[in-house]
Amino acid sequence: MIKRCFLLILSLLLLLQLGLADEGMYPISEIHKLNLRAKGLRIDPKAIYNPNGIGLIDAIVQLSGCTGSFISSDGLILTNHHCAFGAVQAASTKENDFVTNGFLAQTRQEEIQARGISARILESYRDVSKDVMSVVNDKMELGDRTKAIDKKIKEIVAETEKKYPGKRAEVSEMFAGKTYVLFLSTMLRDVRLVYVPPRSIGEFGGENDNWVWPRHTGDFSFLRAYAAPDGSPAEYSTNNIPYHPKKFLKVNPAGVDEGDFTFILGYPGRTFRHRTSHYLAYEENKRMPYVADLFDWQISTMEAMGKNDRAIALKHDTRIKGLANTMKNYRGKLLGMKRMHLVANKQSEEQLLQHFIDSDPQRKALYGTVLEEIGKVYQEMSDHAASELVLDNLRSTPTLLGLGFTIYESSLELQKPDLDRLPAYMERNLANTKQGLRQGLRNYYEPTDKAFVKHILMQALALPENQRIDAIDKQFRGRSEQETDQTINSAFAQTKLADPEALVAAFGKPVGEIDQIEDPFVRAAKMMYPSYQKLQEVRQRREGALSKLSALLVDVKQRYEKTNFIPDANSTLRLTFGRIKGYSPVDATYYKPITTLAGVIEKTTGKDPYATPQKVLDLYKAKDFGKYKNAKLKDVPVAILYDMDTTGGNSGSPVMNAKGELVGVNFDRAYEATINDYAWSESYSRSIAVDIRYVLWVTEKVGGATHILKELGL
Amino acid sequence: MIKRCFLLILSLLLLLQLGLADEGMYPISEIHKLNLRAKGLRIDPKAIYNPNGIGLIDAIVQLSGCTGSFISSDGLILTNHHCAFGAVQAASTKENDFVTNGFLAQTRQEEIQARGISARILESYRDVSKDVMSVVNDKMELGDRTKAIDKKIKEIVAETEKKYPGKRAEVSEMFAGKTYVLFLSTMLRDVRLVYVPPRSIGEFGGENDNWVWPRHTGDFSFLRAYAAPDGSPAEYSTNNIPYHPKKFLKVNPAGVDEGDFTFILGYPGRTFRHRTSHYLAYEENKRMPYVADLFDWQISTMEAMGKNDRAIALKHDTRIKGLANTMKNYRGKLLGMKRMHLVANKQSEEQLLQHFIDSDPQRKALYGTVLEEIGKVYQEMSDHAASELVLDNLRSTPTLLGLGFTIYESSLELQKPDLDRLPAYMERNLANTKQGLRQGLRNYYEPTDKAFVKHILMQALALPENQRIDAIDKQFRGRSEQETDQTINSAFAQTKLADPEALVAAFGKPVGEIDQIEDPFVRAAKMMYPSYQKLQEVRQRREGALSKLSALLVDVKQRYEKTNFIPDANSTLRLTFGRIKGYSPVDATYYKPITTLAGVIEKTTGKDPYATPQKVLDLYKAKDFGKYKNAKLKDVPVAILYDMDTTGGNSGSPVMNAKGELVGVNFDRAYEATINDYAWSESYSRSIAVDIRYVLWVTEKVGGATHILKELGL
Repeated sequence: MIKRCFLLILSLLLLLQLGLADEGMYPISEIHKLNLRAKGLRIDPKAIYNPNGIGLIDAIVQLSGCTGSFISSDGLILTNHHCAFGAVQAASTKENDFVTNGFLAQTRQEEIQARGISARILESYRDVSKDVMSVVNDKMELGDRTKAIDKKIKEIVAETEKKYPGKRAEVSEMFAGKTYVLFLSTMLRDVRLVYVPPRSIGEFGGENDNWVWPRHTGDFSFLRAYAAPDGSPAEYSTNNIPYHPKKFLKVNPAGVDEGDFTFILGYPGRTFRHRTSHYLAYEENKRMPYVADLFDWQISTMEAMGKNDRAIALKHDTRIKGLANTMKNYRGKLLGMKRMHLVANKQSEEQLLQHFIDSDPQRKALYGTVLEEIGKVYQEMSDHAASELVLDNLRSTPTLLGLGFTIYESSLELQKPDLDRLPAYMERNLANTKQGLRQGLRNYYEPTDKAFVKHILMQALALPENQRIDAIDKQFRGRSEQETDQTINSAFAQTKLADPEALVAAFGKPVGEIDQIEDPFVRAAKMMYPSYQKLQEVRQRREGALSKLSALLVDVKQRYEKTNFIPDANSTLRLTFGRIKGYSPVDATYYKPITTLAGVIEKTTGKDPYATPQKVLDLYKAKDFGKYKNAKLKDVPVAILYDMDTTGGNSGSPVMNAKGELVGVNFDRAYEATINDYAWSESYSRSIAVDIRYVLWVTEKVGGATHILKELGL
Repeated sequence: MIKRCFLLILSLLLLLQLGLADEGMYPISEIHKLNLRAKGLRIDPKAIYNPNGIGLIDAIVQLSGCTGSFISSDGLILTNHHCAFGAVQAASTKENDFVTNGFLAQTRQEEIQARGISARILESYRDVSKDVMSVVNDKMELGDRTKAIDKKIKEIVAETEKKYPGKRAEVSEMFAGKTYVLFLSTMLRDVRLVYVPPRSIGEFGGENDNWVWPRHTGDFSFLRAYAAPDGSPAEYSTNNIPYHPKKFLKVNPAGVDEGDFTFILGYPGRTFRHRTSHYLAYEENKRMPYVADLFDWQISTMEAMGKNDRAIALKHDTRIKGLANTMKNYRGKLLGMKRMHLVANKQSEEQLLQHFIDSDPQRKALYGTVLEEIGKVYQEMSDHAASELVLDNLRSTPTLLGLGFTIYESSLELQKPDLDRLPAYMERNLANTKQGLRQGLRNYYEPTDKAFVKHILMQALALPENQRIDAIDKQFRGRSEQETDQTINSAFAQTKLADPEALVAAFGKPVGEIDQIEDPFVRAAKMMYPSYQKLQEVRQRREGALSKLSALLVDVKQRYEKTNFIPDANSTLRLTFGRIKGYSPVDATYYKPITTLAGVIEKTTGKDPYATPQKVLDLYKAKDFGKYKNAKLKDVPVAILYDMDTTGGNSGSPVMNAKGELVGVNFDRAYEATINDYAWSESYSRSIAVDIRYVLWVTEKVGGATHILKELGL
């Protein structure tokens, strides 16, 4: 195994010291330096991560955009309801509405495929910084620098996957232009649904309660990973058998108390704490307000379309959920940035840093203009934000136009050698990309898509003079709204892209043939494609500049602060620790860190999203709390709050107690903690898990799934 | 003085014992029985109310719908910003916008008239139950019973005011059909503005924060009462001198801490805790939902009208404020009734009481059908609620139509002997009623009034067949909407009632002349008047029935519960006591009982209603808290929360510490405490005051009104 071969730990990370009290999503290589015993851990840290053996990290799985953990020797996985939601939806039919009613397999035979969900298990990692950085030099053009790094990474991945057949390789950028790590993992593609509570429990509170504490959502699901009879990863097959993980977590039904030490292992997605004030200002003033407003408009348009037609409303359901999630997150961030004066504070820090740089001639020569140069890149982004955001969303907001781009792009990309292609079109990702085509059409509804096309088109036509998009102007500028409507209507009348078969057939057609399709959306994509190519080049140049500058910035900041940094989250395995802890969101208000079943009842209105199942109401009335009753609260704990450092991707992560036993399933953050991605706050950074006692109470008392409890040894 | 002559205390109240911990708005006659020393009071209860001398109650003034207290020997009064708001608005001009900027008189000469505000001081009271009840007997028709009681009360008032010239007499019903008390007071009509903070402090949070804790509103104003040079009450005159009260409260700038004992003296308006489940069901199912929806509609109509025109928005401002206040109160109550299962709980209590009644043949004979009979009255009200609510609001919602009714009614009423008239048209109230005419037009805006007329008319036309209003059907039923619009438009084109002079001139014209006015709204009033007269008779009959039945109910309930009751609030002077105390509004949430200046800053957005004055922001930044800083909070306390029992009318009441020193000015309740009017809840009943430290900090640091602090001896 690579792990045994490469015990070298990232040179940078080796130097890391413990940062502030609870901030930190620590790479697993850091665990042994954290002095976790002194912090409250009651097991050997090696039991968490043992480079030479097995540890708790071997029980952690990366699901698509989420985390999960093995909790039985037969591959049972505990994760969030929202992480399994797409798969539950895909398995549902009118007759078997698993979304609404939940799903329970009484036997292994009844476990059904969780489409779209795979489970990755980390096998090993090694620092490949030198290798990656060997391809760049200071004289390169900045765009070329980016291309060279991208290509080198692809080569490393290809070589590694060739060397270790059946494994999945990935190179992650820990510090831009500086530190790169190769991760090798096993990917189990046969994952099945075991027990999913009804939506009225698993999504209790819906969008209202999303990003909100106090919380009462039973956001959990049980899945199971399967493998070929020889234990190797395999596609879904009835011949497969339950996967036997190297390690599974012990579930502790006693749960936790306020103040208890806890830790989380998981795959946090992205944070931006090392970015400069210029980036934050761009986010605060340009990107987030634009996206939040656009999503707001999309949501209200879809809601209006579905107002009098339940079938249409259902089609829009998942997309609205996704947009609303992001929108609320951005609104929370915007509020937090203002409240915490984030940009101004960063600017002050940067002034001090600049002072430090300028105070030494040698330092000044090396780093004197780094901050200024970074500022210029973001200034350019801000100056072009209007048109660039429109270009991005022209492709991502309307469904058919987006698919037109994919078809046209596939035709160009599939001509290239594999390593030169955009990632989506590389052989290793092709199957996924094709599957995405069909999925993209699943909830397609023409009137909504027309409205989306028109909305973004109107935004494009309203761009300031210095940011016009030529291809669009040529076709639409100066034309009446009626004429524009006609063009849109006729495009939708002519296109074949709404037909999944036609769509898949068109994918990857050679350039010569693509014109013969004569699809208006493919034509539109072709017409606008040069704008995108230009934008891609601009972005490669910017990325090259930032990569070079960020590396310098990290260097000098480390000298200045005489400390080292934890890399920003980047979907690699991290540990965070902290305590079960309440907080004060605003003056005179204190939120306690444990909610109860009484709170579920209190919120219940009988109407979505607070339509608690009758069974829960009856059990509550009968005070049938079983062994999950907490003596102090005299009730079943439902959700827990803690000051551990999480972000998107940590969904489904196991929350573990001081002994490394599973006591909760992380699923969200408090509203004020949306700002986490930009800055840690001791006062506001709080994350949320469903309490294991509620998971087990629901599973046993509501679901009647005693066989699952038995499998857990309870 | 009557007080010396009539030391008899209400026979019922004499028997009263202390109820639940903190529930209770105690008539002052009860103070000596409350054992307040044991509860935490550190002065002799006689210092609060001394039947033979002077006490704190002599420092309490009843303002129009509010309470205030004297805080200097020169008649300085402390009350709420919202209690003085109408007067500040009336004194404001475009050039001197006291509403926005606040008002400060640097000298006595600069103090300006507070129009519409008078200050009443209680002089004495006595039980007149026997006198009142002497006019009824069991054989009377129920409507006649009501009329007889009303008339007797008017006679007692007239006799008393004749006997004590210059005093104001009032007979209050403590228990319907049972206990009546005559109150005699001095009424100071010359009240002036001294210091009013800017609206951005005095109304900080606006409707958003209304009925909300945690609160950060500086809801206070300083007024001053004036009297004739000989000290007697007088109309406003420049010859008047500051009034010298018998007693004024000492202001304690040290404020209070969590857990401290406090008490309030004030004039709570109305509570309905002794009513039966039938009344609550009527409120929950009929009246409150109708009114809340109607007000909601009125508010959004007015907001839409004023959306693009600031001048129109300003016209609507006060009315929207009033409607929103009631609407939010009702929504809070409706939520609380549901959450506390109020109707069901009352029903259970009544079942037990019925069981007690039925278990003894003599009791059964006397009280057996009381609950059932009460139920019938409310059933009748429920059955006719739709048309009765429309009739009420047809008169109260549209301005000109309402004035048309007043004109027509004045013509009928002024023909009658004074004692037979409706109260508004009795000689002692005529001046007020006429002033109300002009005030009613102050913010008149025709398009809004048209929309209101039409809305209620449409409601009338949509009534069920068994509740039609004949006069309206005759004129409008079966006509097209266009025809209805035309009728409305032409009425507004013809009417003269929007002209204050024409309006006042028409008031009280003899019946013969009233027809000659030929005003469409007076004609409409005449046409519909028989429906109102009929409704008035129905209501007198119901009131007669309820008065008779309620008296019996109180009797039997007292026997059953072996205790006596505090009468429901009825705008008479009451004492309530309790402690500075937080609460938990929902699961896992705890509200602390003291807010701070930091919370003001936190809420500040720079936009109404959170547009904190720059001066406050600067002072906060400089931590210029003066002597008002609380050591524990390291900040200036802004508002305090307590479990004392208050309701509307308690606005402006002084909150006093264990020594009877003023430490806050009561101004609101928490959202969950809107239910107070129907039921006390130990968990949710919390009221809100502005902390004296914030009052003084704003007065000194923001207002620069050091002369006021000097007058307070600080």
